[in-house]
Amino acid sequence: MSERELFGPIFAPDELLRAVGDHAWLQAMLDAEAALARAQAGAGMISVSDADAIASVCDASRFDPAGLGRDGRAAGNPVVPLVKALTAEVPGEASRQVHLGATSQDINDTAAMLVCSRALDLILADLDALAAACAGLAQTHRDTLMAGRTLMQQALPITFGLKAAEWLTQIVDARSYLSRIRHERLAVQLGGAAGTLASLGGKGTQILASFARELDLAEPVTPWHTTRGRVAELGGALAVCAGAVEKVARDVILMAQTEVGEVAEPAGEGRGGSSTLPHKRNPILCVTAAAGARRARASAQTLQSAMDHEHERAAGAWHSEWQALTDALTAAGGAVSAVRETLSGLEVYPRRMRENLDATGGMILAENVTTILSGALGRLRAHELVQAACQRVAREGGDLREELLAEEEIRESITGEELDSALDPAGYLGSAGDFVDRALRHYEKGEAT
Amino acid sequence: MSERELFGPIFAPDELLRAVGDHAWLQAMLDAEAALARAQAGAGMISVSDADAIASVCDASRFDPAGLGRDGRAAGNPVVPLVKALTAEVPGEASRQVHLGATSQDINDTAAMLVCSRALDLILADLDALAAACAGLAQTHRDTLMAGRTLMQQALPITFGLKAAEWLTQIVDARSYLSRIRHERLAVQLGGAAGTLASLGGKGTQILASFARELDLAEPVTPWHTTRGRVAELGGALAVCAGAVEKVARDVILMAQTEVGEVAEPAGEGRGGSSTLPHKRNPILCVTAAAGARRARASAQTLQSAMDHEHERAAGAWHSEWQALTDALTAAGGAVSAVRETLSGLEVYPRRMRENLDATGGMILAENVTTILSGALGRLRAHELVQAACQRVAREGGDLREELLAEEEIRESITGEELDSALDPAGYLGSAGDFVDRALRHYEKGEAT
Amino acid sequence: MSERELFGPIFAPDELLRAVGDHAWLQAMLDAEAALARAQAGAGMISVSDADAIASVCDASRFDPAGLGRDGRAAGNPVVPLVKALTAEVPGEASRQVHLGATSQDINDTAAMLVCSRALDLILADLDALAAACAGLAQTHRDTLMAGRTLMQQALPITFGLKAAEWLTQIVDARSYLSRIRHERLAVQLGGAAGTLASLGGKGTQILASFARELDLAEPVTPWHTTRGRVAELGGALAVCAGAVEKVARDVILMAQTEVGEVAEPAGEGRGGSSTLPHKRNPILCVTAAAGARRARASAQTLQSAMDHEHERAAGAWHSEWQALTDALTAAGGAVSAVRETLSGLEVYPRRMRENLDATGGMILAENVTTILSGALGRLRAHELVQAACQRVAREGGDLREELLAEEEIRESITGEELDSALDPAGYLGSAGDFVDRALRHYEKGEAT
Amino acid sequence: MSERELFGPIFAPDELLRAVGDHAWLQAMLDAEAALARAQAGAGMISVSDADAIASVCDASRFDPAGLGRDGRAAGNPVVPLVKALTAEVPGEASRQVHLGATSQDINDTAAMLVCSRALDLILADLDALAAACAGLAQTHRDTLMAGRTLMQQALPITFGLKAAEWLTQIVDARSYLSRIRHERLAVQLGGAAGTLASLGGKGTQILASFARELDLAEPVTPWHTTRGRVAELGGALAVCAGAVEKVARDVILMAQTEVGEVAEPAGEGRGGSSTLPHKRNPILCVTAAAGARRARASAQTLQSAMDHEHERAAGAWHSEWQALTDALTAAGGAVSAVRETLSGLEVYPRRMRENLDATGGMILAENVTTILSGALGRLRAHELVQAACQRVAREGGDLREELLAEEEIRESITGEELDSALDPAGYLGSAGDFVDRALRHYEKGEAT
Repeated sequence: MSERELFGPIFAPDELLRAVGDHAWLQAMLDAEAALARAQAGAGMISVSDADAIASVCDASRFDPAGLGRDGRAAGNPVVPLVKALTAEVPGEASRQVHLGATSQDINDTAAMLVCSRALDLILADLDALAAACAGLAQTHRDTLMAGRTLMQQALPITFGLKAAEWLTQIVDARSYLSRIRHERLAVQLGGAAGTLASLGGKGTQILASFARELDLAEPVTPWHTTRGRVAELGGALAVCAGAVEKVARDVILMAQTEVGEVAEPAGEGRGGSSTLPHKRNPILCVTAAAGARRARASAQTLQSAMDHEHERAAGAWHSEWQALTDALTAAGGAVSAVRETLSGLEVYPRRMRENLDATGGMILAENVTTILSGALGRLRAHELVQAACQRVAREGGDLREELLAEEEIRESITGEELDSALDPAGYLGSAGDFVDRALRHYEKGEAT
Repeated sequence: MSERELFGPIFAPDELLRAVGDHAWLQAMLDAEAALARAQAGAGMISVSDADAIASVCDASRFDPAGLGRDGRAAGNPVVPLVKALTAEVPGEASRQVHLGATSQDINDTAAMLVCSRALDLILADLDALAAACAGLAQTHRDTLMAGRTLMQQALPITFGLKAAEWLTQIVDARSYLSRIRHERLAVQLGGAAGTLASLGGKGTQILASFARELDLAEPVTPWHTTRGRVAELGGALAVCAGAVEKVARDVILMAQTEVGEVAEPAGEGRGGSSTLPHKRNPILCVTAAAGARRARASAQTLQSAMDHEHERAAGAWHSEWQALTDALTAAGGAVSAVRETLSGLEVYPRRMRENLDATGGMILAENVTTILSGALGRLRAHELVQAACQRVAREGGDLREELLAEEEIRESITGEELDSALDPAGYLGSAGDFVDRALRHYEKGEAT
Repeated sequence: MSERELFGPIFAPDELLRAVGDHAWLQAMLDAEAALARAQAGAGMISVSDADAIASVCDASRFDPAGLGRDGRAAGNPVVPLVKALTAEVPGEASRQVHLGATSQDINDTAAMLVCSRALDLILADLDALAAACAGLAQTHRDTLMAGRTLMQQALPITFGLKAAEWLTQIVDARSYLSRIRHERLAVQLGGAAGTLASLGGKGTQILASFARELDLAEPVTPWHTTRGRVAELGGALAVCAGAVEKVARDVILMAQTEVGEVAEPAGEGRGGSSTLPHKRNPILCVTAAAGARRARASAQTLQSAMDHEHERAAGAWHSEWQALTDALTAAGGAVSAVRETLSGLEVYPRRMRENLDATGGMILAENVTTILSGALGRLRAHELVQAACQRVAREGGDLREELLAEEEIRESITGEELDSALDPAGYLGSAGDFVDRALRHYEKGEAT
Repeated sequence: MSERELFGPIFAPDELLRAVGDHAWLQAMLDAEAALARAQAGAGMISVSDADAIASVCDASRFDPAGLGRDGRAAGNPVVPLVKALTAEVPGEASRQVHLGATSQDINDTAAMLVCSRALDLILADLDALAAACAGLAQTHRDTLMAGRTLMQQALPITFGLKAAEWLTQIVDARSYLSRIRHERLAVQLGGAAGTLASLGGKGTQILASFARELDLAEPVTPWHTTRGRVAELGGALAVCAGAVEKVARDVILMAQTEVGEVAEPAGEGRGGSSTLPHKRNPILCVTAAAGARRARASAQTLQSAMDHEHERAAGAWHSEWQALTDALTAAGGAVSAVRETLSGLEVYPRRMRENLDATGGMILAENVTTILSGALGRLRAHELVQAACQRVAREGGDLREELLAEEEIRESITGEELDSALDPAGYLGSAGDFVDRALRHYEKGEAT
């Protein structure tokens, strides 16, 4: 009916789509019900055999997501009809022990956290592979010269390794933040109808602890049915991850421009082809990643807005989280995956990088020349003279070296040899190499933890 | 795989979900291909029989959305594989005439506008029914007294009719804006690979005009492949619609609070029931509407952000629109539908409204008393005395009338009868009735157009 | 204290900043108070001389915005202390007639609409000048060849005139939408404490009408204290305007890249200079416009979210509008202004456009060649052969013409002359010129209205 | 010109406004210049006396923010004119050592981090006081009965202590996240024109380290001029903080409703008064907090979107951060402050809480009764009977106890005494007390660290 399979796979890998699909959500809800029964058996509230009977039918393939969705309209969530259907599946007296003391939100929230934990594991693995690819590029191209560009204008020489090192640092940090969320903030929810676990008598916190252990999620200090910081934080972390890979995608797209031509996405059968333009090679992975990043942010925004919860269950904000979570995971995770695939096979063209660097007749070294001339001429005068020479080169073409030497004041301040050296980009890289090394060490340290 | 049927139906009606589902998108793409062929036949570019042959297989049930989605990864959109599959379906030589001169974006954008036009027709019909229900409430309750509440505190008497009249005016305006978008801004896109319609030779604008007529969409002045104002405007209009019904939902939820009890959502089998609390009657339609409004805004935000298009086809912004459009339509349309269902059967309890109005011992008429006393005492002094009396009532309970008359300065300024009249809420409604009548006339005028 | 003058002027012109500054807001509030008094005098509710006395002191320079801001904390808005201060300024008995029957929100909302109307007049004037500049470029460069780029890859020849024509159409449409909001949706607000105008007795709607006339704003059907569609619509319209100019800014920034060099922003004293890089010429107007567009959207989002109003005055959503309005106007208007300045003096380099077009050895005409060859070879085979030739050119450099003629199958299908003609970009522009003409007519029609 | 003092103080405390005002930004920029000079002196790059000469004039009161803002237009940031003005202030030869090797972004970004660190210290202190107030409420009201409300309907008894405990846990977590950002993620930026620190020769990373130490900010692994994760994370953390206090504000506003009356904001001179309604006591602190939370989220969204940076300096995204940072800090910090003030003096009315709890004739204990009856009747039958009784009470008024005992099947299953006990809210609180204790321990543990 609204299958989302026509566009979905363009932006996210199958495994991730499966991890957040209807079947996965349903299984997570059933996992929560099974874990609840087991936790209650552990506390002596129900019998172990009843818990086993319940758990034995907690299999998503027994249930119909679309039917539950339709039946969920009346209550405003799919858990109400699921509990009914599950109760009908459980044989004998055990069926009376289903969902004891829990409310729909307990199951829905806990399932959400399970879905998130499973999807995040996939995304974290992709981030690992992406970081590795990025580290590889930083290392390989530690000394590959290219133009640094600020406000989209060539500014100074940098290395491609430095660019990759900066990507890497950001990816490592985003990964570390997301991993912290995964391991510390994804918690079970169990509060009963209003957060008191009233119908579990005095055993509430004991059952809560076992419930968390059963599902390998964190145990919350208090129920969080209406304090949604952890969901909002997850949204924020996914937005940051999406942004971290979007930066890479942006740079790749810019470097892959026809007129720049410094990199190309890995070639694949048909990939990046155009229906009408046989000569094109589109950076399509990065394009879909950029699209995913935009959508991830919008979903994150929904999740952050949804902290505005009323009393003991919100009248709308909570309900807005479910699909937003799925979307945020898919969009951010898809972007990570596409950029991982990009960097894993990125074609890098150092020669074009060098050609672009040389294309402005040496102007890209203007800062260096200015600095060197400042000793003799003072900074302001040096700046003035060099800027004037640059403007002549920009206007009339030619070469900065010649324009500079045409100026008497300059000729008196610097020799031709000194000027050649000042105009060598490899001699004006400052700490670029150091920063690459620092990024690689930071990455390796992250790996170790 | 990512079917979205577990949560989707909770927030949107089946018909709307179908109108924006995979099948509908696919059919819209095929409608665009068929219309293109017919327009080209009309211009003598291909034969009528070829156009017919193409149109005859433009039936979504012949194609597999999920397969196209997967195959669309390489090109970054589903149109590339669809054109291939369509070409394979078209018998004989006619297959060489498929998709002539068009680019994927032409088909995808035109399909998007078709999907939007069909979904908007459903939403506009729901807005009509909602406006009618709202007008009915405004008329019926033109003189039904209730407390007006500002910053969530009782302020002055109003009528429920006035509240409904304000809802109505906003709904009429939102509908009119959305309708304008529907009829003026949803346009075909046809530009070919870079907006020039180069491969249509000199017949580009002629074919463009027929293409628009075939599909009953507007003909754009220029191709809009990278000028996305119309998409952003649609996003904005959907956000405004969602906000207009969210306002109603918010008020209904607040009036339905246990402690307020002035309205209840229409009862339905099982609707608003709780899995654990047998006594509850949740305003679940409005709750889902409020959730939908939140998500509609996030999607609108994606659409508005996506105007940032690069050159002749955007590297990401365009791709972010497709699912955002589906989401915006579903979320906003679902909210409209839920509020329409709410108001169509809203249970209104005038007695509770009156009880709440009387609950503060007359304090809600304090402004009126102040105004009347201002004549004798001056506005500041009157304000001071009435405020002091109100504070005593608020602190110690009791009745404002008595507290006021306990004050000599007041007793000298007003008779008991005058005070009774000043404290009658029905006598302090100002232009409430006029505003109701104006809103109804505004609504009827809108109906007429 | 938080003056916002260090960054503000970088993004918006002085006149616009003044139009939305503290003084302007304060004057608008006072204009509303004066108009209210005059409207009440017109209805015989107060004397004309009292109204004159009030109006005579409604001059912002008599009041201290910062003091009102601080004093406004207790009530949560600056109108409460302003009314107190104004009352103190009004001489004699007339002081008792200040702010009669109005509530703070009436004054604040009406002032907001006045501020918006004045700021929008500035923005609309800038949009007019921008459209004129854009139309000039479209006309001048109707036939200036350049590369069309999709997904940031060269795709097909276009003209710079076509690009400008698409910008123009979008600007004209955005302007027309904003103008409609300006003239139809900016309305006075007058409802009194809860929307009934209770303390105006039976004269409410009469006074409302005069109040609107006095201020030259629209008269609303009903009070809109909690139905904020018009504010949300304005937010949306500003986001669309911002997006329309952001598109231009994006393209200019991309065309101004060192490696592309097709345009430059108008030179100005010191403009676009860098503190450290004497040779740079940054597209700084477009950069600040792009920044403004981002912030305009965020403010629009706040305004759209704020439709979620509770009862007769919202508990937070309303208060979130005031600064968001100022920000949305400043950010969007600043972006419009910067892009207007850019296009008014844009330096265009047709030679570089042509060089870039030729840089791929003819590959950019690959579609045309494919189409022509399709006649003899069939579309798929033609596509294959041309794609293969393109790949050789891309890999090894050289010229598409030679690579094509090296292929026997092609040599048999096309003559050298036919190929030359197929490879001439000027011969493959389709309807580009028509579209330019249509855009100019659309613009002139808009001008006429 | 655009002073922002009319509305600003309504939403944020003076000290915070000062901490992010023009003067504070300017001083932070000057602090960065002074620290840079000192770090360079430490590395032997310039003399200590030159560094001292520079530092001695790095005093914001020597410079004019508005003038710098206007002069900053040409370069697109205020640092360029500031460096010029600073150079002019520095006496003698030392003036040639100003801003050596740095680019405008280095100073602007480092200043931003200083401004953030100073504003965050204020916000963190407010969060501490807020947490303390919240803990006090949780402790004092550990056993104060009130109605738990889900979807705005009374659901089950809870305690006010539990509600406060959930607020507390969320505030502690938000504080801890914000504190981590403050101490680990706020870093100096120093990269020079393109991130290589080229003009610092081999001493780049040494100077970077000293620069960070001088300013007591973190030392980044690599320059972060275009990897903006830390700014986006800060945005997210502020949105989460804002959301955490918005939850409290929302609950207070709802509890303060005239019809609920369970709490009131602390009374203050004039606070919460209305210009027209003498009897009102508006929850104005929470209203302004709710407004601030909305705006904080929009600014956070801008910051998260701004990770989309191009190459070595973004063409717009970077420029969008500056005012968004100021706004996010002000809006979130203002909300925290208002809610801190609210909870520090919150008036709590346990009697009204109890009256509301009793207002539904015992229906709020329906779940408990159902559970107890389930033993004898089975869960479904018990649910049916209790729901029917509840519906009778809801429809006709009266008392659940009587309605239940009127049912023979129930009379046979439970004694009157057992029913009384089942209907006692104090006996159906489950783990509420435990959760309060857990939250207090969690808070104290946080305090200890």
